[in-house]
Amino acid sequence: MKVLIVHAHPEPHSFTAAMRDAAVEVLQAEGHAVRVSDLYAKGFDPVAKAADFPSRQNPDYLVYALEQRHAWDSGTLPDDIRNELDLVLWADLLILSFPMYWFSVPAMLKGWIDRVLLSGPTYGGKRFYDRGGLVGKKGLLAFTLGARPHMFGERAIHGPLDDMLRPLLRGTLYYVGMEVLAPFAAYHVPYLNDAARGSILDAYRAYLRQLEALQPLRFPRLEDFDDRLYPRD
Amino acid sequence: MKVLIVHAHPEPHSFTAAMRDAAVEVLQAEGHAVRVSDLYAKGFDPVAKAADFPSRQNPDYLVYALEQRHAWDSGTLPDDIRNELDLVLWADLLILSFPMYWFSVPAMLKGWIDRVLLSGPTYGGKRFYDRGGLVGKKGLLAFTLGARPHMFGERAIHGPLDDMLRPLLRGTLYYVGMEVLAPFAAYHVPYLNDAARGSILDAYRAYLRQLEALQPLRFPRLEDFDDRLYPRD
Repeated sequence: MKVLIVHAHPEPHSFTAAMRDAAVEVLQAEGHAVRVSDLYAKGFDPVAKAADFPSRQNPDYLVYALEQRHAWDSGTLPDDIRNELDLVLWADLLILSFPMYWFSVPAMLKGWIDRVLLSGPTYGGKRFYDRGGLVGKKGLLAFTLGARPHMFGERAIHGPLDDMLRPLLRGTLYYVGMEVLAPFAAYHVPYLNDAARGSILDAYRAYLRQLEALQPLRFPRLEDFDDRLYPRD
Repeated sequence: MKVLIVHAHPEPHSFTAAMRDAAVEVLQAEGHAVRVSDLYAKGFDPVAKAADFPSRQNPDYLVYALEQRHAWDSGTLPDDIRNELDLVLWADLLILSFPMYWFSVPAMLKGWIDRVLLSGPTYGGKRFYDRGGLVGKKGLLAFTLGARPHMFGERAIHGPLDDMLRPLLRGTLYYVGMEVLAPFAAYHVPYLNDAARGSILDAYRAYLRQLEALQPLRFPRLEDFDDRLYPRD
């Protein structure tokens, strides 16, 4: 497989970075090609804005998704977006590597999603979910958080983890057509000693070694909805 | 009431901006004090980063939330964060005004959440949910999206809207202790004519006029969990 790790953490020596490095090592040892896009290191600009489109379809009124499609069709994407998109199109597996902020990705990574997962090549009109532009690829969230495992679950204080992650798992990775793997969460990280952190890295390595055997999460399929996207039955 | 509208849209003349302006007008007419923070207009920086803390507790290793707490305690927050936080602390009602990107807020607004809702004054340790730092305030999401109403709901293609919004409604606004009002969603906006847009503005005005009578959304309360945050029964 070709694997892209998009990494966003403001501390270069974070445990999240150690997870990223462990992933590179394990995946390469398994024979996969791996590339890393470190958004903080490259000073990625996460702000979706008019200046993203030097050649506008409508210079007077910005509809971001429409200008994305136009820039894609006309080959006028700026280099920073184009480079990231090329990596996404290259990859068979996308790993988003981040610390959980507010039960979601940091703004740095949200902006990568906003700007790089272009209307056009990755989705558009009725090309989403299992008909999305990136069908055939896989997606994985790998993140650190402060909470403990018992704080997530059916009767837990924050409810099921996947419910909190829904806009990312279903609304982003699956939206563009990816098979979404069960997320890898590293709990309670700021409070752990080195031994406990080592155990998490071991668990992550083991998880990555059997990636290709994993069944993806299950989500609705478009065949169960009609042309206007009403449920069929 | 004192109302803060935090607005983030890359198009200054967007319909989302028209909703913002309608809110200012209606709320002022109802006798409320209203302030607007327009993040794109002020060039707000959404990136959580080491440079947010000129005087670090730990200069060698950045744990963002810990440095937030330290900067708050030591009065060393940079002006851009401090100014936004002062507005939040001033307000009785916070309205987040944005176009939905990827079933969430644009990175610009996510970064406002990451950087401004500080560990310390807004939450910390077991000070969250109904014991959060901003108990007594109200929060509201008011946003535009391309999808149609029938695409959200129990059997709909995207499932219930509030489920997609969970990290924002429960994981952010309720997390810091706010009473969370039912979100106001303006559907299908890029495809509507002026008359249809006018109807949405009317509906939004009517919604805002009866804000104070609304019951907040229901979420778990900490009294139902023990000291280690396990469910009590």
